[in-house]
Amino acid sequence: MGLRKGTKCRICKTKGKKTNAVVFLPQHRLALCKEHFIEWFEKRVEKTIKEFRMFHKNEKILVSVSGGKDSLALWNALIKLGYNADGFYIDLGIGDYSETSKELAKKFAERVNKTLHIVELKKEFYPIPTIDEKTNRPACSACGVIKRYYMNKYARELGYSVIATGHNLDDEVAVLFGNTLQWDLNYLSRQYPVLREENGFIRKVKPLCKITEKESALYSVFNNIEYIEYECPFSEGASSIEYKLLLNQLEEKHPGTKLKFYSEFLKKVYPIFKEFKAKQDKPLNKCKICGEPSYSEICGVCRLKREVENKLKIKREVSR
Amino acid sequence: MGLRKGTKCRICKTKGKKTNAVVFLPQHRLALCKEHFIEWFEKRVEKTIKEFRMFHKNEKILVSVSGGKDSLALWNALIKLGYNADGFYIDLGIGDYSETSKELAKKFAERVNKTLHIVELKKEFYPIPTIDEKTNRPACSACGVIKRYYMNKYARELGYSVIATGHNLDDEVAVLFGNTLQWDLNYLSRQYPVLREENGFIRKVKPLCKITEKESALYSVFNNIEYIEYECPFSEGASSIEYKLLLNQLEEKHPGTKLKFYSEFLKKVYPIFKEFKAKQDKPLNKCKICGEPSYSEICGVCRLKREVENKLKIKREVSR
Repeated sequence: MGLRKGTKCRICKTKGKKTNAVVFLPQHRLALCKEHFIEWFEKRVEKTIKEFRMFHKNEKILVSVSGGKDSLALWNALIKLGYNADGFYIDLGIGDYSETSKELAKKFAERVNKTLHIVELKKEFYPIPTIDEKTNRPACSACGVIKRYYMNKYARELGYSVIATGHNLDDEVAVLFGNTLQWDLNYLSRQYPVLREENGFIRKVKPLCKITEKESALYSVFNNIEYIEYECPFSEGASSIEYKLLLNQLEEKHPGTKLKFYSEFLKKVYPIFKEFKAKQDKPLNKCKICGEPSYSEICGVCRLKREVENKLKIKREVSR
Repeated sequence: MGLRKGTKCRICKTKGKKTNAVVFLPQHRLALCKEHFIEWFEKRVEKTIKEFRMFHKNEKILVSVSGGKDSLALWNALIKLGYNADGFYIDLGIGDYSETSKELAKKFAERVNKTLHIVELKKEFYPIPTIDEKTNRPACSACGVIKRYYMNKYARELGYSVIATGHNLDDEVAVLFGNTLQWDLNYLSRQYPVLREENGFIRKVKPLCKITEKESALYSVFNNIEYIEYECPFSEGASSIEYKLLLNQLEEKHPGTKLKFYSEFLKKVYPIFKEFKAKQDKPLNKCKICGEPSYSEICGVCRLKREVENKLKIKREVSR
């Protein structure tokens, strides 16, 4: 992270101590020791929660846990900040990747002595590899639809008022970049770190939206959190990864570019797009098949199910 | 341009002829011979003029000529399409670069037998190297302000109703990209290939906004147009060049990305930003010093002049 040898922690310095920094945050021009980096990280999460009025201390929060650095760092920080946060894990049925990440999520839940709800996708629906095989949709897109659906359903049924996800600044910027390249107003008018609750939809928040990937990895390492280090095998070739590489090139030359791109969007442009779309938006309905909230007659998951089952039916008929 | 050996011209094919293609346009998946590329280029320019209602055959057009491939290709295409177009050249006083480009512009004007108006910046103001030395502004930004000012002033005084500039798709996309990274609504709400005339401002149009850099270079080469091949020495390190390199990476992987980013912006987003800004815009005034149209009390060129002259004054006082 470009830390020069001998650089001292800025916070320790103000207290008259000369501690070597172990982290340098270029976009904030900030060098910190381990202790003050952890403090800085948690303060930044708290500030983001307040800035976007995400939730209060008396609310029941459900953290969507993947077993990766971001969601575990988020869960850890929320607990340390005194929030009432449990975990929710969806076993997507992606072989070793799912097995390992589930074990790490369980281990962390035990360590912090909190409830981890586990849902197995193969019991509810079909596992991701089957969906990938039977539909033409990119796996990441189908997976997103499914995770949002079950997270919302379970959070509501279990009595949580907020769902918190571990999306970090790099994730948000890559998505914003992709939506901007296409000027997709449907997505751009909804890309905000808080989506308020409405008719069956639970409030959704992203408290790490101003934390970089590197920062959440460091926070996890400094807190001895074991997390799954490899990417989901289905994410290979995803355009978000391509955009991340490109944006990293820009960030390296001009530290702060990502944060500015994202923050200025939220401040200046999101409200304009939101107002524009509000004039055209369809009302929120209930899916005719499952009854979950949906903007279309039939929700995304039921449509996906139909697609998979049609393929399976054709296969059965052919093999008869 | 990724042309495979033996590929035939698509237009010739439809006429039953098998001519080897010499150009491949990946974003249009189009392979063409020299003759049909020239035809395609001119049709595309004509289509753009019509799409944005830029001007008619009975209007007097002034083409801003730099001596580069874009402005000379534009001038050539407009004449071939039957428009009434003269040229306007500003000698910026940048040593060899200006000398060479002026000669090439004059040579072309003679070839097409059209008027080329020449203005010498050192007689009107200060040459670019002096401005670069005496102010803290990036040279490209000052140069842009100056060119727009004199182009507008002369076009109006000489009785032209439209100014046409050679900005191509790559230029426009790089500027759009930079403005988007910063979400600069002032610029974004004005980035359109036609700026209508108002109170002293002549209409300004960019008929090559859907033509790539490579396409305008090829068109110039195929028409034996001699143009200045090297970049202005002051443009080194300009952020627009950095963005171009980055966007080229994207384009190479996903041909058509640039055109889509630009076209969708114009269609879907520009109208929203324009309407939003229109509610806040200050009225157009006249500069208190020179009387030219300006949104501020004092126009950009008069402010620049003041800055240069203050520096020269200080220098004279110090050396006394």
